[in-house]
Amino acid sequence: MILGKVCGTVVSTRKVQKLQGYKLLIIKPLFNESADYIVAADNIGAGIGETVLVTQGHNTQYALDRNEVPIDAIVVGIIDEDQHIEIK
Amino acid sequence: MILGKVCGTVVSTRKVQKLQGYKLLIIKPLFNESADYIVAADNIGAGIGETVLVTQGHNTQYALDRNEVPIDAIVVGIIDEDQHIEIK
Amino acid sequence: MILGKVCGTVVSTRKVQKLQGYKLLIIKPLFNESADYIVAADNIGAGIGETVLVTQGHNTQYALDRNEVPIDAIVVGIIDEDQHIEIK
Amino acid sequence: MILGKVCGTVVSTRKVQKLQGYKLLIIKPLFNESADYIVAADNIGAGIGETVLVTQGHNTQYALDRNEVPIDAIVVGIIDEDQHIEIK
Amino acid sequence: MILGKVCGTVVSTRKVQKLQGYKLLIIKPLFNESADYIVAADNIGAGIGETVLVTQGHNTQYALDRNEVPIDAIVVGIIDEDQHIEIK
Repeated sequence: MILGKVCGTVVSTRKVQKLQGYKLLIIKPLFNESADYIVAADNIGAGIGETVLVTQGHNTQYALDRNEVPIDAIVVGIIDEDQHIEIK
Repeated sequence: MILGKVCGTVVSTRKVQKLQGYKLLIIKPLFNESADYIVAADNIGAGIGETVLVTQGHNTQYALDRNEVPIDAIVVGIIDEDQHIEIK
Repeated sequence: MILGKVCGTVVSTRKVQKLQGYKLLIIKPLFNESADYIVAADNIGAGIGETVLVTQGHNTQYALDRNEVPIDAIVVGIIDEDQHIEIK
Repeated sequence: MILGKVCGTVVSTRKVQKLQGYKLLIIKPLFNESADYIVAADNIGAGIGETVLVTQGHNTQYALDRNEVPIDAIVVGIIDEDQHIEIK
Repeated sequence: MILGKVCGTVVSTRKVQKLQGYKLLIIKPLFNESADYIVAADNIGAGIGETVLVTQGHNTQYALDRNEVPIDAIVVGIIDEDQHIEIK
Protein backbone atom coordinates (compact mmCIF):
# COMPACT_ATOMS: atom_id res chain seq x y z
CA MET A 1 0.00 0.00 0.00
CA ILE A 2 1.05 3.60 -0.16
CA LEU A 3 0.40 6.53 2.14
CA GLY A 4 -1.01 9.63 0.49
CA LYS A 5 -2.64 12.92 1.20
CA VAL A 6 -6.10 13.62 -0.24
CA CYS A 7 -5.69 16.79 -2.26
CA GLY A 8 -8.74 16.99 -4.49
CA THR A 9 -11.72 15.29 -6.01
CA VAL A 10 -12.60 14.62 -9.62
CA VAL A 11 -16.03 14.58 -11.24
CA SER A 12 -16.90 12.52 -14.28
CA THR A 13 -20.44 12.57 -15.62
CA ARG A 14 -19.76 10.41 -18.65
CA LYS A 15 -18.37 7.26 -17.15
CA VAL A 16 -18.61 3.50 -17.06
CA GLN A 17 -21.88 2.51 -15.33
CA LYS A 18 -20.15 0.38 -12.71
CA LEU A 19 -18.26 3.40 -11.33
CA GLN A 20 -21.51 5.08 -10.20
CA GLY A 21 -21.58 5.88 -6.50
CA TYR A 22 -17.87 5.97 -5.73
CA LYS A 23 -16.21 9.21 -4.72
CA LEU A 24 -13.00 9.73 -6.69
CA LEU A 25 -10.14 11.33 -4.77
CA ILE A 26 -6.89 12.75 -6.10
CA ILE A 27 -4.09 11.42 -3.90
CA LYS A 28 -0.56 12.78 -3.55
CA PRO A 29 1.77 9.95 -2.43
CA LEU A 30 3.77 10.64 0.76
CA PHE A 31 7.40 9.71 1.41
CA ASN A 32 7.86 9.11 -2.31
CA GLU A 33 10.31 10.92 -4.52
CA SER A 34 8.04 10.99 -7.50
CA ALA A 35 5.05 13.28 -7.39
CA ASP A 36 2.86 11.02 -9.49
CA TYR A 37 -0.65 11.71 -8.28
CA ILE A 38 -3.15 8.89 -8.50
CA VAL A 39 -6.94 8.78 -8.35
CA ALA A 40 -8.46 6.41 -5.79
CA ALA A 41 -12.06 5.43 -5.12
CA ASP A 42 -13.28 6.04 -1.59
CA ASN A 43 -16.20 4.59 0.31
CA ILE A 44 -15.08 5.23 3.89
CA GLY A 45 -15.38 9.01 3.84
CA ALA A 46 -11.88 10.45 3.60
CA GLY A 47 -11.71 14.24 3.31
CA ILE A 48 -9.37 16.77 1.74
CA GLY A 49 -6.14 17.04 3.72
CA GLU A 50 -6.40 13.68 5.42
CA THR A 51 -3.64 11.08 5.15
CA VAL A 52 -4.90 7.79 3.80
CA LEU A 53 -3.73 4.28 3.07
CA VAL A 54 -4.33 3.24 -0.54
CA THR A 55 -4.41 -0.29 -1.94
CA GLN A 56 -3.77 -0.73 -5.66
CA GLY A 57 -4.36 -3.45 -8.23
CA HIS A 58 -6.69 -6.41 -8.25
CA ASN A 59 -7.06 -6.64 -4.47
CA THR A 60 -8.95 -3.34 -4.41
CA GLN A 61 -11.97 -5.53 -5.09
CA TYR A 62 -11.83 -6.94 -1.56
CA ALA A 63 -12.63 -3.51 -0.10
CA LEU A 64 -15.86 -3.15 -2.08
CA ASP A 65 -19.45 -3.99 -1.30
CA ARG A 66 -20.27 -4.97 -4.86
CA ASN A 67 -18.51 -7.04 -7.50
CA GLU A 68 -16.40 -6.23 -10.52
CA VAL A 69 -15.81 -2.50 -10.25
CA PRO A 70 -13.23 -1.27 -12.80
CA ILE A 71 -11.02 0.61 -10.36
CA ASP A 72 -7.34 -0.01 -9.59
CA ALA A 73 -6.89 2.06 -6.40
CA ILE A 74 -9.03 2.46 -3.28
CA VAL A 75 -8.73 4.12 0.12
CA VAL A 76 -8.65 1.32 2.72
CA GLY A 77 -7.81 3.37 5.82
CA ILE A 78 -7.60 6.91 7.18
CA ILE A 79 -4.47 7.51 9.26
CA ASP A 80 -5.16 8.76 12.79
CA GLU A 81 -4.87 12.52 12.80
CA ASP A 82 -2.83 12.69 15.98
CA GLN A 83 -0.35 10.13 14.77
CA HIS A 84 3.12 11.32 14.03
CA ILE A 85 4.45 9.08 11.30
CA GLU A 86 8.07 8.68 12.15
CA ILE A 87 10.62 7.17 9.83
CA LYS A 88 13.73 5.74 11.48
CA MET B 1 -6.49 5.21 -11.64
CA ILE B 2 -4.63 7.98 -13.38
CA LEU B 3 -5.81 11.16 -15.04
CA GLY B 4 -4.58 11.70 -18.58
CA LYS B 5 -5.12 13.76 -21.67
CA VAL B 6 -6.04 12.00 -24.91
CA CYS B 7 -3.37 13.07 -27.37
CA GLY B 8 -3.62 10.65 -30.27
CA THR B 9 -4.89 7.38 -31.63
CA VAL B 10 -3.03 4.37 -32.90
CA VAL B 11 -4.02 1.99 -35.69
CA SER B 12 -2.99 -1.63 -35.85
CA THR B 13 -4.24 -3.80 -38.69
CA ARG B 14 -2.27 -6.90 -37.76
CA LYS B 15 -3.42 -7.58 -34.22
CA VAL B 16 -4.75 -10.19 -31.86
CA GLN B 17 -8.34 -11.07 -32.90
CA LYS B 18 -9.78 -10.22 -29.48
CA LEU B 19 -8.69 -6.57 -29.79
CA GLN B 20 -11.04 -5.98 -32.75
CA GLY B 21 -13.51 -3.15 -32.21
CA TYR B 22 -11.72 -1.18 -29.52
CA LYS B 23 -10.45 2.30 -30.24
CA LEU B 24 -6.87 2.68 -29.01
CA LEU B 25 -5.99 6.08 -27.53
CA ILE B 26 -2.57 7.48 -26.69
CA ILE B 27 -2.79 9.01 -23.23
CA LYS B 28 -0.43 11.52 -21.63
CA PRO B 29 -0.63 11.20 -17.82
CA LEU B 30 -1.48 14.42 -15.92
CA PHE B 31 0.07 15.58 -12.66
CA ASN B 32 2.84 13.03 -13.12
CA GLU B 33 6.51 13.86 -13.33
CA SER B 34 7.27 11.17 -15.84
CA ALA B 35 6.02 11.64 -19.36
CA ASP B 36 5.47 7.97 -19.99
CA TYR B 37 2.59 7.82 -22.46
CA ILE B 38 0.35 4.79 -22.33
CA VAL B 39 -2.18 3.34 -24.77
CA ALA B 40 -5.68 2.73 -23.43
CA ALA B 41 -8.69 1.09 -25.00
CA ASP B 42 -11.83 3.23 -25.14
CA ASN B 43 -15.46 2.29 -25.58
CA ILE B 44 -17.15 5.37 -24.12
CA GLY B 45 -16.16 7.80 -26.87
CA ALA B 46 -13.36 10.00 -25.52
CA GLY B 47 -11.91 12.47 -28.01
CA ILE B 48 -8.54 14.13 -28.62
CA GLY B 49 -7.87 16.79 -25.99
CA GLU B 50 -10.29 15.44 -23.41
CA THR B 51 -9.14 14.57 -19.89
CA VAL B 52 -9.94 11.01 -18.96
CA LEU B 53 -9.74 8.60 -16.05
CA VAL B 54 -7.83 5.42 -16.89
CA THR B 55 -7.92 2.11 -15.02
CA GLN B 56 -4.97 -0.23 -15.45
CA GLY B 57 -4.29 -3.92 -14.83
CA HIS B 58 -6.62 -6.85 -14.44
CA ASN B 59 -9.65 -4.83 -13.38
CA THR B 60 -9.90 -3.26 -16.84
CA GLN B 61 -11.93 -6.36 -17.64
CA TYR B 62 -14.82 -5.08 -15.49
CA ALA B 63 -15.34 -2.14 -17.87
CA LEU B 64 -15.83 -4.38 -20.91
CA ASP B 65 -18.90 -5.84 -22.56
CA ARG B 66 -17.15 -9.05 -23.55
CA ASN B 67 -14.75 -11.41 -21.80
CA GLU B 68 -11.03 -11.92 -21.84
CA VAL B 69 -9.72 -8.98 -23.85
CA PRO B 70 -5.90 -8.72 -23.73
CA ILE B 71 -5.72 -5.06 -22.71
CA ASP B 72 -4.17 -3.58 -19.57
CA ALA B 73 -5.55 -0.01 -19.65
CA ILE B 74 -9.01 1.37 -20.41
CA VAL B 75 -10.78 4.72 -20.25
CA VAL B 76 -13.45 4.46 -17.53
CA GLY B 77 -14.54 8.12 -17.36
CA ILE B 78 -14.34 11.44 -19.16
CA ILE B 79 -13.70 14.35 -16.79
CA ASP B 80 -16.31 17.12 -16.99
CA GLU B 81 -15.02 19.82 -19.31
CA ASP B 82 -16.01 22.68 -17.04
CA GLN B 83 -14.33 21.14 -14.05
CA HIS B 84 -11.28 22.85 -12.71
CA ILE B 85 -9.15 20.15 -11.16
CA GLU B 86 -7.61 21.81 -8.17
CA ILE B 87 -4.83 20.33 -6.14
CA LYS B 88 -4.52 21.57 -2.58
CA MET C 1 9.89 -9.39 -4.31
CA ILE C 2 11.84 -6.51 -2.88
CA LEU C 3 14.14 -6.23 0.11
CA GLY C 4 13.33 -3.44 2.53
CA LYS C 5 14.06 -2.14 5.98
CA VAL C 6 11.21 -1.74 8.45
CA CYS C 7 11.31 1.89 9.48
CA GLY C 8 7.98 2.61 11.12
CA THR C 9 4.43 1.56 11.74
CA VAL C 10 1.19 3.24 10.85
CA VAL C 11 -2.08 3.26 12.78
CA SER C 12 -5.48 3.62 11.19
CA THR C 13 -8.58 3.48 13.36
CA ARG C 14 -11.06 4.24 10.59
CA LYS C 15 -10.38 1.51 8.09
CA VAL C 16 -11.93 -1.18 5.96
CA GLN C 17 -13.20 -3.97 8.25
CA LYS C 18 -11.16 -6.68 6.51
CA LEU C 19 -7.88 -4.95 7.43
CA GLN C 20 -8.49 -5.54 11.16
CA GLY C 21 -5.72 -7.46 12.89
CA TYR C 22 -2.85 -6.83 10.51
CA LYS C 23 0.15 -4.79 11.63
CA LEU C 24 1.01 -2.18 9.01
CA LEU C 25 4.73 -1.50 8.53
CA ILE C 26 6.41 1.33 6.65
CA ILE C 27 9.13 -0.20 4.50
CA LYS C 28 12.09 1.54 2.88
CA PRO C 29 13.21 -0.44 -0.19
CA LEU C 30 16.88 -1.50 -0.21
CA PHE C 31 19.23 -1.46 -3.21
CA ASN C 32 16.76 0.73 -5.06
CA GLU C 33 17.50 4.17 -6.39
CA SER C 34 14.08 5.53 -5.63
CA ALA C 35 13.19 6.10 -2.01
CA ASP C 36 9.53 5.33 -2.49
CA TYR C 37 8.41 3.94 0.85
CA ILE C 38 5.61 1.41 0.83
CA VAL C 39 3.31 0.10 3.54
CA ALA C 40 3.18 -3.68 3.95
CA ALA C 41 1.00 -5.86 6.15
CA ASP C 42 2.88 -8.16 8.52
CA ASN C 43 1.78 -11.30 10.31
CA ILE C 44 5.15 -12.92 11.02
CA GLY C 45 6.37 -10.39 13.57
CA ALA C 46 8.97 -8.20 11.85
CA GLY C 47 10.36 -5.37 13.99
CA ILE C 48 11.74 -1.88 13.38
CA GLY C 49 15.19 -2.04 11.82
CA GLU C 50 14.88 -5.56 10.46
CA THR C 51 15.41 -6.32 6.79
CA VAL C 52 12.44 -8.06 5.24
CA LEU C 53 11.31 -9.62 1.99
CA VAL C 54 8.09 -8.10 0.67
CA THR C 55 5.71 -9.61 -1.91
CA GLN C 56 3.43 -7.23 -3.80
CA GLY C 57 0.26 -7.56 -5.85
CA HIS C 58 -2.36 -10.25 -6.02
CA ASN C 59 -0.13 -13.05 -4.71
CA THR C 60 0.02 -11.40 -1.28
CA GLN C 61 -3.18 -13.34 -0.67
CA TYR C 62 -1.25 -16.61 -0.55
CA ALA C 63 0.56 -15.47 2.60
CA LEU C 64 -2.66 -14.88 4.54
CA ASP C 65 -4.69 -17.06 6.85
CA ARG C 66 -7.99 -15.60 5.71
CA ASN C 67 -9.49 -14.73 2.36
CA GLU C 68 -9.91 -11.54 0.41
CA VAL C 69 -7.91 -8.98 2.36
CA PRO C 70 -7.54 -5.66 0.47
CA ILE C 71 -3.75 -5.35 0.79
CA ASP C 72 -1.19 -5.19 -2.01
CA ALA C 73 2.05 -5.77 -0.04
CA ILE C 74 2.98 -8.21 2.72
CA VAL C 75 6.12 -9.25 4.58
CA VAL C 76 6.86 -12.87 3.60
CA GLY C 77 10.28 -13.28 5.23
CA ILE C 78 12.69 -11.71 7.69
CA ILE C 79 16.28 -11.76 6.46
CA ASP C 80 18.74 -13.47 8.81
CA GLU C 81 20.38 -10.81 10.95
CA ASP C 82 23.89 -12.20 10.58
CA GLN C 83 23.63 -12.39 6.83
CA HIS C 84 25.75 -10.03 4.84
CA ILE C 85 23.87 -9.35 1.64
CA GLU C 86 26.55 -9.11 -0.95
CA ILE C 87 25.98 -7.87 -4.44
CA LYS C 88 28.47 -9.04 -7.05
CA MET D 1 -0.60 -0.95 -23.11
CA ILE D 2 2.66 0.57 -24.24
CA LEU D 3 4.07 1.26 -27.68
CA GLY D 4 7.55 -0.09 -28.29
CA LYS D 5 10.07 -0.82 -31.01
CA VAL D 6 11.30 -4.39 -31.46
CA CYS D 7 15.06 -4.15 -31.13
CA GLY D 8 16.26 -7.68 -30.57
CA THR D 9 15.48 -11.26 -29.68
CA VAL D 10 16.64 -13.37 -26.80
CA VAL D 11 17.33 -17.12 -26.75
CA SER D 12 17.00 -19.28 -23.68
CA THR D 13 17.63 -23.00 -23.96
CA ARG D 14 17.25 -23.77 -20.26
CA LYS D 15 13.79 -22.49 -19.51
CA VAL D 16 10.48 -23.33 -17.94
CA GLN D 17 8.72 -25.95 -20.10
CA LYS D 18 5.60 -23.82 -20.58
CA LEU D 19 7.60 -21.10 -22.37
CA GLN D 20 8.44 -23.46 -25.28
CA GLY D 21 7.33 -22.15 -28.65
CA TYR D 22 7.12 -18.45 -27.94
CA LYS D 23 9.48 -16.01 -29.62
CA LEU D 24 10.93 -13.61 -27.06
CA LEU D 25 11.44 -10.04 -28.29
CA ILE D 26 13.39 -7.24 -26.64
CA ILE D 27 11.22 -4.12 -26.74
CA LYS D 28 12.29 -0.51 -26.32
CA PRO D 29 9.33 1.55 -25.06
CA LEU D 30 8.38 4.59 -27.19
CA PHE D 31 7.35 8.01 -25.91
CA ASN D 32 8.66 7.08 -22.47
CA GLU D 33 11.37 8.93 -20.61
CA SER D 34 12.85 5.83 -19.10
CA ALA D 35 14.73 3.48 -21.37
CA ASP D 36 13.74 0.37 -19.48
CA TYR D 37 13.67 -2.38 -22.07
CA ILE D 38 11.27 -5.23 -21.52
CA VAL D 39 11.01 -8.71 -23.02
CA ALA D 40 7.67 -9.63 -24.57
CA ALA D 41 6.44 -12.92 -26.00
CA ASP D 42 5.22 -12.77 -29.59
CA ASN D 43 2.99 -15.07 -31.57
CA ILE D 44 1.80 -12.73 -34.32
CA GLY D 45 5.12 -12.39 -36.13
CA ALA D 46 6.57 -8.97 -35.26
CA GLY D 47 9.99 -8.27 -36.72
CA ILE D 48 13.04 -6.21 -35.74
CA GLY D 49 12.35 -2.49 -36.24
CA GLU D 50 8.58 -2.75 -36.16
CA THR D 51 6.51 -0.72 -33.72
CA VAL D 52 4.27 -2.88 -31.59
CA LEU D 53 1.59 -2.65 -28.95
CA VAL D 54 2.43 -4.60 -25.79
CA THR D 55 0.03 -5.73 -23.06
CA GLN D 56 1.48 -6.44 -19.64
CA GLY D 57 0.35 -8.31 -16.54
CA HIS D 58 -2.25 -10.99 -16.01
CA ASN D 59 -4.31 -10.11 -19.09
CA THR D 60 -1.50 -11.30 -21.39
CA GLN D 61 -3.14 -14.69 -20.96
CA TYR D 62 -6.09 -13.60 -23.10
CA ALA D 63 -3.82 -13.27 -26.14
CA LEU D 64 -2.60 -16.86 -25.92
CA ASP D 65 -3.79 -20.08 -27.53
CA ARG D 66 -2.93 -22.19 -24.51
CA ASN D 67 -3.40 -21.81 -20.79
CA GLU D 68 -1.18 -20.73 -17.92
CA VAL D 69 1.95 -19.47 -19.63
CA PRO D 70 4.33 -17.73 -17.17
CA ILE D 71 4.81 -14.53 -19.17
CA ASP D 72 3.95 -10.96 -18.13
CA ALA D 73 4.22 -9.13 -21.48
CA ILE D 74 3.01 -10.00 -24.99
CA VAL D 75 2.79 -8.30 -28.38
CA VAL D 76 -0.91 -7.81 -29.16
CA GLY D 77 -0.63 -5.64 -32.27
CA ILE D 78 1.79 -4.40 -34.92
CA ILE D 79 1.36 -0.71 -35.69
CA ASP D 80 0.69 0.06 -39.37
CA GLU D 81 3.98 0.95 -41.02
CA ASP D 82 2.61 3.93 -42.90
CA GLN D 83 1.04 5.39 -39.79
CA HIS D 84 2.50 8.55 -38.44
CA ILE D 85 1.92 8.51 -34.72
CA GLU D 86 1.22 12.08 -33.87
CA ILE D 87 1.05 13.42 -30.37
CA LYS D 88 -0.96 16.58 -29.89
CA MET E 1 9.53 -9.99 -18.59
CA ILE E 2 12.83 -8.40 -17.75
CA LEU E 3 16.40 -9.51 -18.32
CA GLY E 4 18.61 -9.45 -15.25
CA LYS E 5 21.92 -10.65 -13.89
CA VAL E 6 21.96 -12.87 -10.83
CA CYS E 7 24.14 -11.04 -8.32
CA GLY E 8 23.43 -12.64 -4.98
CA THR E 9 21.23 -14.83 -2.86
CA VAL E 10 19.25 -14.04 0.24
CA VAL E 11 18.53 -16.29 3.21
CA SER E 12 15.46 -15.99 5.38
CA THR E 13 14.95 -18.47 8.20
CA ARG E 14 11.82 -16.84 9.60
CA LYS E 15 9.48 -16.84 6.64
CA VAL E 16 6.04 -17.73 5.43
CA GLN E 17 5.71 -21.55 5.32
CA LYS E 18 4.75 -21.61 1.65
CA LEU E 19 8.10 -20.08 0.63
CA GLN E 20 10.02 -23.16 1.86
CA GLY E 21 12.15 -24.79 -0.79
CA TYR E 22 12.60 -21.92 -3.20
CA LYS E 23 16.01 -20.37 -3.74
CA LEU E 24 15.79 -16.58 -3.56
CA LEU E 25 18.07 -14.71 -5.97
CA ILE E 26 18.93 -11.01 -6.02
CA ILE E 27 18.58 -9.80 -9.61
CA LYS E 28 20.03 -6.67 -11.16
CA PRO E 29 17.89 -5.63 -14.17
CA LEU E 30 19.74 -5.25 -17.48
CA PHE E 31 19.21 -2.52 -20.08
CA ASN E 32 17.27 -0.52 -17.51
CA GLU E 33 18.18 2.93 -16.32
CA SER E 34 17.06 2.33 -12.79
CA ALA E 35 19.16 0.06 -10.65
CA ASP E 36 16.25 -1.26 -8.66
CA TYR E 37 17.26 -4.76 -7.67
CA ILE E 38 14.52 -7.31 -7.22
CA VAL E 39 14.40 -10.70 -5.52
CA ALA E 40 13.14 -13.60 -7.64
CA ALA E 41 12.43 -17.19 -6.73
CA ASP E 42 14.30 -19.79 -8.76
CA ASN E 43 13.63 -23.46 -9.37
CA ILE E 44 15.57 -24.03 -12.58
CA GLY E 45 19.05 -23.63 -11.09
CA ALA E 46 20.36 -20.21 -12.14
CA GLY E 47 23.78 -19.29 -10.74
CA ILE E 48 25.58 -16.10 -9.76
CA GLY E 49 26.62 -14.13 -12.84
CA GLU E 50 24.13 -15.74 -15.20
CA THR E 51 21.69 -13.65 -17.22
CA VAL E 52 18.10 -14.68 -16.63
CA LEU E 53 14.59 -13.92 -17.79
CA VAL E 54 12.26 -12.96 -14.93
CA THR E 55 8.45 -12.98 -14.97
CA GLN E 56 6.67 -10.77 -12.45
CA GLY E 57 3.17 -10.56 -11.00
CA HIS E 58 0.38 -13.09 -10.81
CA ASN E 59 1.57 -15.19 -13.74
CA THR E 60 4.62 -16.31 -11.77
CA GLN E 61 2.28 -19.00 -10.47
CA TYR E 62 2.28 -20.74 -13.85
CA ALA E 63 6.00 -21.52 -13.49
CA LEU E 64 5.54 -23.36 -10.19
CA ASP E 65 4.98 -27.01 -9.36
CA ARG E 66 2.71 -26.24 -6.42
CA ASN E 67 -0.16 -23.85 -5.85
CA GLU E 68 -0.50 -20.50 -4.17
CA VAL E 69 3.07 -19.47 -3.42
CA PRO E 70 3.32 -15.83 -2.21
CA ILE E 71 6.02 -14.71 -4.65
CA ASP E 72 5.79 -11.97 -7.28
CA ALA E 73 8.92 -12.69 -9.36
CA ILE E 74 10.43 -15.93 -10.69
CA VAL E 75 13.24 -16.95 -13.01
CA VAL E 76 11.63 -18.54 -16.08
CA GLY E 77 14.70 -18.88 -18.31
CA ILE E 78 18.50 -18.73 -18.31
CA ILE E 79 19.89 -16.87 -21.31
CA ASP E 80 22.35 -18.89 -23.41
CA GLU E 81 25.87 -18.01 -22.29
CA ASP E 82 27.25 -17.69 -25.81
CA GLN E 83 24.46 -15.40 -26.90
CA HIS E 84 25.36 -11.84 -27.61
CA ILE E 85 22.29 -9.77 -26.81
CA GLU E 86 22.30 -7.09 -29.43
CA ILE E 87 20.08 -4.05 -29.32
CA LYS E 88 19.41 -2.35 -32.65
